[in-house]
Amino acid sequence: MTDRFVIGIDYGTLSARAVVCRTSDGAVMGEAESVYPHAILYDHLPDGTPLPPEWALQHPQDYLDALYTSVPAAMKQSGVPRDSVIGIAVDFTGSTPMPLASDGQPLCFHAEYAGRPHAYVKLWKHHSAVREAEELNELARRYAPELLASMGGRISTEVFFAKLIQVMHEDPELFCAIDQWMEAGDWVTQQLTGESTRSMAAAINKGFYRIGIGYPAFIEETYPELRGMRNTILRGELCPIASVAGHLTAQMAERLGLPAGIVVPPMHLDAHAAVPALGVTGPGHALYTLGTSTGFMLVQPDFHAVEGACSITYSGMLPDCYGYANGQASAGDQLAWFVDHCVPASVSDEAARRGMSLHQLLTEHAAALAPGQSGLIALDWWNGNRSVLQNTGLSGLMVGMTLQTQPHEMYRALLESIAFGVRRIIEAHSAAGIEMDTVHLAGGISYKNPLLVQMVSDVTGKRLLGSKRVSAPAVGAAILAAVAAGAYKTIAEAAAHMNCLSGQEYHPNAAASAVYDQLYAEYVRLHDYFGRGENDVMLRLRRLAAEQSGKG
Amino acid sequence: MTDRFVIGIDYGTLSARAVVCRTSDGAVMGEAESVYPHAILYDHLPDGTPLPPEWALQHPQDYLDALYTSVPAAMKQSGVPRDSVIGIAVDFTGSTPMPLASDGQPLCFHAEYAGRPHAYVKLWKHHSAVREAEELNELARRYAPELLASMGGRISTEVFFAKLIQVMHEDPELFCAIDQWMEAGDWVTQQLTGESTRSMAAAINKGFYRIGIGYPAFIEETYPELRGMRNTILRGELCPIASVAGHLTAQMAERLGLPAGIVVPPMHLDAHAAVPALGVTGPGHALYTLGTSTGFMLVQPDFHAVEGACSITYSGMLPDCYGYANGQASAGDQLAWFVDHCVPASVSDEAARRGMSLHQLLTEHAAALAPGQSGLIALDWWNGNRSVLQNTGLSGLMVGMTLQTQPHEMYRALLESIAFGVRRIIEAHSAAGIEMDTVHLAGGISYKNPLLVQMVSDVTGKRLLGSKRVSAPAVGAAILAAVAAGAYKTIAEAAAHMNCLSGQEYHPNAAASAVYDQLYAEYVRLHDYFGRGENDVMLRLRRLAAEQSGKG
Repeated sequence: MTDRFVIGIDYGTLSARAVVCRTSDGAVMGEAESVYPHAILYDHLPDGTPLPPEWALQHPQDYLDALYTSVPAAMKQSGVPRDSVIGIAVDFTGSTPMPLASDGQPLCFHAEYAGRPHAYVKLWKHHSAVREAEELNELARRYAPELLASMGGRISTEVFFAKLIQVMHEDPELFCAIDQWMEAGDWVTQQLTGESTRSMAAAINKGFYRIGIGYPAFIEETYPELRGMRNTILRGELCPIASVAGHLTAQMAERLGLPAGIVVPPMHLDAHAAVPALGVTGPGHALYTLGTSTGFMLVQPDFHAVEGACSITYSGMLPDCYGYANGQASAGDQLAWFVDHCVPASVSDEAARRGMSLHQLLTEHAAALAPGQSGLIALDWWNGNRSVLQNTGLSGLMVGMTLQTQPHEMYRALLESIAFGVRRIIEAHSAAGIEMDTVHLAGGISYKNPLLVQMVSDVTGKRLLGSKRVSAPAVGAAILAAVAAGAYKTIAEAAAHMNCLSGQEYHPNAAASAVYDQLYAEYVRLHDYFGRGENDVMLRLRRLAAEQSGKG
Repeated sequence: MTDRFVIGIDYGTLSARAVVCRTSDGAVMGEAESVYPHAILYDHLPDGTPLPPEWALQHPQDYLDALYTSVPAAMKQSGVPRDSVIGIAVDFTGSTPMPLASDGQPLCFHAEYAGRPHAYVKLWKHHSAVREAEELNELARRYAPELLASMGGRISTEVFFAKLIQVMHEDPELFCAIDQWMEAGDWVTQQLTGESTRSMAAAINKGFYRIGIGYPAFIEETYPELRGMRNTILRGELCPIASVAGHLTAQMAERLGLPAGIVVPPMHLDAHAAVPALGVTGPGHALYTLGTSTGFMLVQPDFHAVEGACSITYSGMLPDCYGYANGQASAGDQLAWFVDHCVPASVSDEAARRGMSLHQLLTEHAAALAPGQSGLIALDWWNGNRSVLQNTGLSGLMVGMTLQTQPHEMYRALLESIAFGVRRIIEAHSAAGIEMDTVHLAGGISYKNPLLVQMVSDVTGKRLLGSKRVSAPAVGAAILAAVAAGAYKTIAEAAAHMNCLSGQEYHPNAAASAVYDQLYAEYVRLHDYFGRGENDVMLRLRRLAAEQSGKG
């Protein structure tokens, strides 16, 4: 049998990365990245129109340009024959929605709207729809508490409808010109297929959509402008994960150097696409991505009420099962904060002299300590708590400093706090009846900091599986394309062959685990004391800081 | 009436400082410092004999040399007529005891003992009499719990008898050659007077002596070698504060350029001598010295059971009243730790560019914040807790850090923690029925950091009185000399005229106080949670750190 290939394109925040994968084993034959020329529009539109604070827009032309350059470049690098490619898929950030005009073009492509901020793509991190998110929270609290619970207890400004309603509130004239409102990832997929289809998973995760229920009625009831939306601005078939959303148009095939008519599944959200890419497709396994923040994801055949889960969706992560998404609101961010704000010149001089980053140097010194030797313990809440407690008002804590405490000891305490935090999440799952013995790792820090990875194993007592340094979401999209194209019957089967695990394993060290058990007990005690209302000092301090801000 | 003058000599840890003061108004006419050539003998004796860890000796010749140079230099600078000097007094660190041979000379002056470590002065910070302190603690727990309570619940390695018994244990031969064992300050005073007298206050504060009781019997009962010690190695009249211990010998008068026969009171301990120097001589007032650690001292006509007081003595601070000594185990130390370990190059570069110290720069930025604006709170326990909780195993804590937290905000939280700590001490006094409305300030930081001083006023709600940047203990010694010489009838009267207050006052700012009341409530809650057994995590972390030390 001749080799066949699939293409996955990961649309990230600043660039798109295309990979060409062999269906038999997932080998990445070619890979190419295209940076978006407009990056993120924070301050002003391309024509100079200024943007208010907390705005974050993108230009859809960048997505097309990235497609036209990254796919041919990855194909060229791969050297695979054009006709051996059997599918192509996209994963995307989300919710990153955009308005289309009645001609099917993005509104911002029209000269009359090019100077209107609301005509552009609202990137996931566009955070100005505060009023709208508040309204949605109130509605959900009243009409759909179970929806709220499945979204981590709070609807953020990032969601699909908050951004749509913001247009309605702030630029009603432009709102009337919107013919369709869709995730940018759906738009890119529609450019590939010419079909009016959308990702059901994105609708589930970011658009309150539930299989068997649809979009919640309170939206149309509250906002008359949205009545009938399913057949108007939200029209298009909602396609399940790894189904066939369409086939590559001849025109696009020509442009990308691919065979016309190959299968295109619906887009998937980037974080979720990484789940099968890392080989997590059933019970007993979880994916832990260690980046600026962390993600902790797994699937189960049935529903479990996991305390303080960020998201529990049916068919939103993998088809026909429950996907559980959790995570820590800071990890790498917290380490970066420490390195930027708390490391004296003596240490930065040593790092410069030895040609190391501060992270490398502090990790080297921290690695020379035994567990518990620093005398310190920290809570991993520098950016609040996202899972289990779900409270963004919580903040950082460190205990145990003496006049002898050194920077690398504090750095180690921060590393340990990340490991304690993920153990707490794992225990929230096991308390709800979800057990796992293997954690699959991804994310920048998992490659860069073996000390932290070993700590995670020692603290959690779990076997960890390392992964290759590739774009896991892109490989995940490729896997979905392979399934949609029929190369595999199920995602699980495809992922078993095509995943990007490295073969590297980490096992807990019993001696270290014994010490960490003691420290983790301290962590839990502090976690509960400061996080469960016994002493809300963190919330009060934050409120006071806001009141006093600017009075200095 | 012609002006009259008194001389005070403050024997500190590394140097002695002599001041010539006018009795009418305390004006410092002349001042001179002499550094001890041998400084502290930590590693070896002058002949090279090595010293074990935790030893800290001094050479008594340094004290004489400092006397012979500082007093004439201060007199010369003052320009006052020799015959107008009416008294001279010494204050000294303590317990800083030494052995004398039967010829009245220090044992170490004898060639045969010059190579024996135990022949030298044991400086207050000589910390190797660990076994002996433990024995004394056990004895005191059994026989004299009230003594233990009056010493802060624990006898330290620094006390007079621990150091004596250490000689007995470690060099019994040399112990047999000891004719007298006395505080070095008493020895210097005896050199001035030729009389065999001692400071009763030092015996009270460092030697377990109690008026009407004497030295505790358990010492002689436990250590037969010390039977009859009051008439042998501890012989000499115990003189109360500001009494006449003797008169300046002709020989010494000649050497110092002073009139023979002028009055010499007994030496006083340095910290206690500062109390009258700062004008604190009766109820309603307290002295707060802000240095690397802090001292909080006051006097009362009667006994109050102040929770966790470091020391409560009768006639140990001022005569015929109760002296209360408390303090925080770290203050400046904690700020220095932060500046040394937690300030990034960007901040140290700015300080260098602007020619400021890091403390100055961080204080400048911290001063621009309103109370509560940092969102942080800290406990001032980097070196344990000395007063109220009396637990050296406690450690530092900071709460409220976010990814936006800046170094100057953490520095401000440390400053505030010092102010909260002293308010807690003040409240321990008021809970015991001791009220005060005015706090007199001394110590390096009180001159250098007006932000902290204002915080102390805002947090405590007290009026603060600033002081002049002179050696308060030396002025205190001069005040005691003035009283002994009859220039004033009482110490209170002398202190009212001769104190070194600057006239500067600080008053609480009502708006700031209101915010600090909220923060202080948080401080107390954390103080009690971590300090009173609700969560002994600090003690457990410290124990674990000791266990794990060296296993990395």
